[in-house]
Amino acid sequence: MQGLMMQHELMISDLIEHAATVHKDREIYTLNADLSEHRYNWADCAKRTRKLANALLAAGIKKGDRVATIAWNNYRHIEIYYAVSSIGAIVHTINPRLKPQQIAWMVNHAEDTMLMFDTTFGPIIDGVSAACPTVKKWICMTDKAGMPDYKTDVQDYESFISDHPDTIEWERFDENTACTLCYTSGTTGDPKGVLYSHRSTILHAMAGCFMDVIGGGSNDVILAVVPMFHVSAWGLIYSAAMVGAKLVMPGPGLDGANMCKMITQEGVTLMAGVPTVWLGVYNHAKANNIDLSSVKKALVGGSALPESLLRAYEQDLGIPMQQGWGMTETSPLGSTYCPYPGTDLSDYDSTVQDKLYAGRRIFGVDMRIVNDEGNILPQDGEAEGHLQVRGPWIASGYFKGAGSDSFTDDGWFATGDVSKLHPRGYMEITDRSKDVIKSGGEWVSSIEVENAAADHPEVAMAACIGIAHEKWQERPFLIVQAMPGKSPDLDEIKQCITAKCAKWWLPDEIVFQDELPLGATGKILKRELKEVYKDHYTK
Amino acid sequence: MQGLMMQHELMISDLIEHAATVHKDREIYTLNADLSEHRYNWADCAKRTRKLANALLAAGIKKGDRVATIAWNNYRHIEIYYAVSSIGAIVHTINPRLKPQQIAWMVNHAEDTMLMFDTTFGPIIDGVSAACPTVKKWICMTDKAGMPDYKTDVQDYESFISDHPDTIEWERFDENTACTLCYTSGTTGDPKGVLYSHRSTILHAMAGCFMDVIGGGSNDVILAVVPMFHVSAWGLIYSAAMVGAKLVMPGPGLDGANMCKMITQEGVTLMAGVPTVWLGVYNHAKANNIDLSSVKKALVGGSALPESLLRAYEQDLGIPMQQGWGMTETSPLGSTYCPYPGTDLSDYDSTVQDKLYAGRRIFGVDMRIVNDEGNILPQDGEAEGHLQVRGPWIASGYFKGAGSDSFTDDGWFATGDVSKLHPRGYMEITDRSKDVIKSGGEWVSSIEVENAAADHPEVAMAACIGIAHEKWQERPFLIVQAMPGKSPDLDEIKQCITAKCAKWWLPDEIVFQDELPLGATGKILKRELKEVYKDHYTK
Repeated sequence: MQGLMMQHELMISDLIEHAATVHKDREIYTLNADLSEHRYNWADCAKRTRKLANALLAAGIKKGDRVATIAWNNYRHIEIYYAVSSIGAIVHTINPRLKPQQIAWMVNHAEDTMLMFDTTFGPIIDGVSAACPTVKKWICMTDKAGMPDYKTDVQDYESFISDHPDTIEWERFDENTACTLCYTSGTTGDPKGVLYSHRSTILHAMAGCFMDVIGGGSNDVILAVVPMFHVSAWGLIYSAAMVGAKLVMPGPGLDGANMCKMITQEGVTLMAGVPTVWLGVYNHAKANNIDLSSVKKALVGGSALPESLLRAYEQDLGIPMQQGWGMTETSPLGSTYCPYPGTDLSDYDSTVQDKLYAGRRIFGVDMRIVNDEGNILPQDGEAEGHLQVRGPWIASGYFKGAGSDSFTDDGWFATGDVSKLHPRGYMEITDRSKDVIKSGGEWVSSIEVENAAADHPEVAMAACIGIAHEKWQERPFLIVQAMPGKSPDLDEIKQCITAKCAKWWLPDEIVFQDELPLGATGKILKRELKEVYKDHYTK
Repeated sequence: MQGLMMQHELMISDLIEHAATVHKDREIYTLNADLSEHRYNWADCAKRTRKLANALLAAGIKKGDRVATIAWNNYRHIEIYYAVSSIGAIVHTINPRLKPQQIAWMVNHAEDTMLMFDTTFGPIIDGVSAACPTVKKWICMTDKAGMPDYKTDVQDYESFISDHPDTIEWERFDENTACTLCYTSGTTGDPKGVLYSHRSTILHAMAGCFMDVIGGGSNDVILAVVPMFHVSAWGLIYSAAMVGAKLVMPGPGLDGANMCKMITQEGVTLMAGVPTVWLGVYNHAKANNIDLSSVKKALVGGSALPESLLRAYEQDLGIPMQQGWGMTETSPLGSTYCPYPGTDLSDYDSTVQDKLYAGRRIFGVDMRIVNDEGNILPQDGEAEGHLQVRGPWIASGYFKGAGSDSFTDDGWFATGDVSKLHPRGYMEITDRSKDVIKSGGEWVSSIEVENAAADHPEVAMAACIGIAHEKWQERPFLIVQAMPGKSPDLDEIKQCITAKCAKWWLPDEIVFQDELPLGATGKILKRELKEVYKDHYTK
């Protein structure tokens, strides 16, 4: 028997209209790329979103069309998010740190018909436009006065929207319609597109509003550090409209000085970003004795939270840090730290281990671990296996059918992480599946070896890879990048590793390299290192 | 273009399994009707839920079958909620305060095939069982030792579930499948059944977890005062599992002494109930100097929050109160108070008015007001009209097609409330549509007149009704119930009214009555009063 409740689709247009009606004068602040400031409110944002939507429709953008962005976190990018999705078209966010040929590859693969970009990225556009024949219209997110000269035929954003009405009757359509496209960073093989739906986006944003996930209400001020070109800024743009929070959009101003200015000036209460940004904020705040006490919580994701950073924030600044885990394929929120009930918070040291796990599972994200044969392993905090997830905001496939081997026959997504699932709900990542080292049939955690090596104060970064070995099939090998101007002692590094890892995990050899190769999201490109060193033990 | 996200149905079985996996040892406390205490955790609850589900399947309960409950808030009732819905059958919660013939009417209308009840309600069962031929099985929620003698053929709950396994493979089915049935209190005409779906229930519970709605996380302890027989206890049973909160289930122990005991002993942080219960808690806490400071928030709904109660909690006890609005047809959460950003919370008196409104609208609940002709009125805090709502947890119709005139052609539910919608997102209820008094073509708010009369310290309750008048078509008439042993002065009551209302709203006549007629949910049955007094001004 069916229930008798309204078949009201979960639609992104409902979010912007809710914010415009119930939270109309709540502010959105932007620090522009030129360090000028822009302020308006959700009602203004909705008006301009409707103008943009009308302009897009007039320009012939149809349902399912891909509209790309190469842009910072700013108010025009928010308008694009809401307008493009609300007319049934798809926002394709592109990471500007990719190489031009990668950007062109993505634009062509996505068959983007329009591309909107911030002035900063003009040179990229002029570099790739000739190689992007599907793009019929290029729009620079500025006004007429702010337009540089372009080789490419570009219109400015303000002229594009100016003549269009600020009212619209949003169409209601199937909530499973695609709304956003984001490519994975592609540390292995070609990038793969993840295609979110209105339904998945709304459900994910609702979960983001749970207190133990991100939380936040109409009195919160959210600093969205995590870029809008990276998995929809963890859903913050949507969650903020849902609860009527104030948004602070930092543009490219992610350095310590600008961040501290925004936090204090705008009274930020919640902020979300990657560890490197928080390090910069910490250093600037300490050096200049800046009071950041308005902040109730700093979310950390994207890469593992170092213990030193955690302690610096919590013990020194008094700002709670919350680590989360997610992937492009998980929208991204999958697990977030919250203290286990009954934890003695007065004994700080005893709370640290839980905080360094990847968080506790969020309702809606089901997790299991399996062994190499696909058998399900116990969630006892001991067994280690390939992490698989499922739920309403988890990808069921990649755009145009790529990477189908990541999806199991019984409906789970294979994350490529190796994990332990603890009885208290915490998830612990011990390695990336592709980075796992198998020595004599036993697993070596490359991540733990790297973290242990990084305990040495003169080590900046370390990459542990498994390379072929005659006797043990594979043995660990460590490549170290030293801190600028330092030459860490090899024996000391070895001591750091043996202090924390099983003796046989110690890499047979440790070498130094000036600069480890990094991908566009800052992750070490281990496949390049493996290519270089693959015969090192056997040659 | 469709998104590429998992088609993962929103299912109630996912809730109990999430709690059992991630929050397994978080407690559920019950104060039983005999004042004994019961404790177990979410993992235990899930095990017994699976046993019950297997027992129900073995007893032949099929998808769509209605299983009724007449029960307090206790752990067995939670198991019934999860087990019945998770196998695709429907929990039909019945208000035990209804008269036996009303209960029999509902059971027959719902065609319940099974009925589970607490020992307290044995006499009701023996009174109605002969009139309920659809019920094939009666189950008393106790064990063999606790079973009284019944005329009716009754099995005890523990024997019913004991031989069944505590594991199950939950079936996944259409998320629009019905899960719960609750009849409206029926102050006008026959009760009407509202049929919730798995989808609406999960979405509603997610919204309940928003900080500005109910909120709560895994470290919270939620006292569910609002009865499970009344709109699924505002979704608390589901929200608690979603975030892993501890639940405190008071059984019938809603008096001040038992409530204070539970609050202090279990460390309650959030609690939700009707104003009368909070008054009892306040009086007991004050008389016995009990510290209730663990409580972060007391939610109030069901009937309007009196200013005196608000001030008693916030200014005297230091416990924030949060008023909410909802109906059986809205699952019920529609709007909840949260301070408007920028409110000067240090100036207490200036915050009171906002707190007495019906709350700010929740994302997912769209509201509009219309005039008698159905034209949409502005949301300016001035215009007053019939409140209509829509959204994914709003009813689209009543069970078996009753009351279709409450649903508009363009997809809205007419609440029967007369409201103002304020620009800052607050909703204000000024009257029930059916209680509105039209005097000389102008509206008189019966609620405002009643509230003003109740300002007199010797007035316990007042009902203002419109009755036929030769010159003005209708004029207000007030029936007052005095405080026990008191005889309030008529002129003083009139002064109270003229102090707050337009002069012409003053009822032409005020009479006293020992006891005003109340319905099963404690609301005054105005239709009975209207019947008695309808010719008073014209005869």
